[in-house]
Amino acid sequence: MSRNAPRRAAIVAAICGLLAGLPTTVLAGKVRIELQGGYGSNIDVLGPGELKFVELANTLSGGSIEVRFHEPNALVPVLQSFDAVASGALDAAYTGPGFWTGKDVTFALLGAVPFGPGTTEFLAWVQEGGGRAFWEELYGRFNIVGIPCGLLPPEGSGWFRRPIDRVEDLRGLKMRFYGLGARVMEKLGVSTQLIAGGEIYQALQLGTIDATEFSMPSIDLSYGFYQVAKYYYFPGWHQQASFLDLMISRDKWNTLDDTQRAIVRAACDATILWQIGYGEARQGPALAELAAKGVEIRTWPPEVLDAMRAAWTQVVEELKTENATFARAWQSLEDFRRSYRDWAARGHMRE
Amino acid sequence: MSRNAPRRAAIVAAICGLLAGLPTTVLAGKVRIELQGGYGSNIDVLGPGELKFVELANTLSGGSIEVRFHEPNALVPVLQSFDAVASGALDAAYTGPGFWTGKDVTFALLGAVPFGPGTTEFLAWVQEGGGRAFWEELYGRFNIVGIPCGLLPPEGSGWFRRPIDRVEDLRGLKMRFYGLGARVMEKLGVSTQLIAGGEIYQALQLGTIDATEFSMPSIDLSYGFYQVAKYYYFPGWHQQASFLDLMISRDKWNTLDDTQRAIVRAACDATILWQIGYGEARQGPALAELAAKGVEIRTWPPEVLDAMRAAWTQVVEELKTENATFARAWQSLEDFRRSYRDWAARGHMRE
Repeated sequence: MSRNAPRRAAIVAAICGLLAGLPTTVLAGKVRIELQGGYGSNIDVLGPGELKFVELANTLSGGSIEVRFHEPNALVPVLQSFDAVASGALDAAYTGPGFWTGKDVTFALLGAVPFGPGTTEFLAWVQEGGGRAFWEELYGRFNIVGIPCGLLPPEGSGWFRRPIDRVEDLRGLKMRFYGLGARVMEKLGVSTQLIAGGEIYQALQLGTIDATEFSMPSIDLSYGFYQVAKYYYFPGWHQQASFLDLMISRDKWNTLDDTQRAIVRAACDATILWQIGYGEARQGPALAELAAKGVEIRTWPPEVLDAMRAAWTQVVEELKTENATFARAWQSLEDFRRSYRDWAARGHMRE
Repeated sequence: MSRNAPRRAAIVAAICGLLAGLPTTVLAGKVRIELQGGYGSNIDVLGPGELKFVELANTLSGGSIEVRFHEPNALVPVLQSFDAVASGALDAAYTGPGFWTGKDVTFALLGAVPFGPGTTEFLAWVQEGGGRAFWEELYGRFNIVGIPCGLLPPEGSGWFRRPIDRVEDLRGLKMRFYGLGARVMEKLGVSTQLIAGGEIYQALQLGTIDATEFSMPSIDLSYGFYQVAKYYYFPGWHQQASFLDLMISRDKWNTLDDTQRAIVRAACDATILWQIGYGEARQGPALAELAAKGVEIRTWPPEVLDAMRAAWTQVVEELKTENATFARAWQSLEDFRRSYRDWAARGHMRE
């Protein structure tokens, strides 16, 4: 193809659009987006979500968008995908806001909130209560367009090699932890570190760590944690719902026309809906399978959960003082939750 | 335009597609869909949901689909929209499966299930647990393509002119009711009738009925029921989550190409997601406004709720005997709920 071919195709397309009486937006240039995933395509719930988005964007656009999926680390290390998208070296990445607390701790509030909202309330805050504006603001500072693009059901609280009956049993534990929940655990005497998913099993096996949280039953099952830790605790107070998102470099976004942008956003919304249903449906059978494998599935004693909640309140006060953007986002979430609380208690049945 | 114009346009489009190197699916014929809504566009949550779908289908297709929205009854009476779509006289309608129990009572299970699943569980059953197949089967019998296209948060239980402290207080009441919940109320001695939304206020005012259920606080607020009934009961056990759907005539669906069909489905999924967030966000403020207007917002005494649940169990047994399709759909839902129950109790925090 000669160097002038793209321009010639565009002219032909425009003329043909007039001839055929078709809206010219249909004939906008084809855009290719190189997308790196944050999770292997073979990992339950996470992988299928990534592929769902790719399929939808490509299908809905009738070929005017071609998203090409690359496995994690294929183009850049996952934890560098933010910088790569910000600089334009990478078109797009699918990860989660909680990875970018080093840029601004407020990102963590978009990902998952300890003792925070569940699926429908989190969705309502993001969509109608002001949450989405923080995606624009935070990513916008780095020339990234950030779009909510996945929503995970509750996680489990984690895998322990010994039972935890009292708050004191946590003291001195070495535990893999992610996000703001790690600061809560630190206050209870746990020594936390972040380890990539694929390396957790070995760390537990060797005793480098005593415990780990990672994700929800169907995902944790596929990592085989049950083989090296027998106590699995619920509920996952630290992540009752977790947003994932798409980051696109501003320059790449600017090459999309209005229809293509609407398609990317709608593909993300449809992916979120799909992931909620798929994720919820997978956990019951996964729990049963874990129990059949001899895992002891436990619910936190109320006093342990209370201690975690109290520690979280302390962490929030510290973060509000440290970071003005966090304080604003927290206020927005709190205002929304206050107006939602009575409705949740009245309108939603508890079985 | 001459009679040959559409064919000429198609030929031009095909040739231009080859010239421009674009996928020919992009250049498929433009399709116009006349859609009648089931709810006035000015009614909260319901109306905006209808318009959201229309906007998405039109925008995502870049103009290759033109859905034209018509207010309820503008083309056919709402309760005749099923027959109109089945015969092809009307291209499409946006209503809810619960309207069509006269065709098969199983439709009601797709709309809302008394003492049934809430938002995320209902979504999971429809998407992953077998529910969606009943949309294909039931509507398919009538040459209709039925697609889930909206999902309402919980409803309130209804408006009463007198307080209901005991099951006995229900006996002899005349109440407007919709769906399977009406059969439950009948068992408790209530005389039910179905009245269209716009006529309920006057019926309450004149004393033709003593009570009514309609929808959720923000919607009920706009109808002004609080002016003629002071007692508003929660939770809405009869509709904890309600699917709405799009019906398209099979003939019209067959004129869509694969891309256009994918766009209609994705527009519905994105509409569902939007409606969940919007609906949940609107109810807290609406409850507060109703309280400020002097409405007494009450929670059912447990023994009243228990009596309703027992009546519902009876109704289910009757329906399973009456209708084999209902029995199959109920079994599918029950199987799903059994596997979901432990997960719901373990994984989801209760505040």
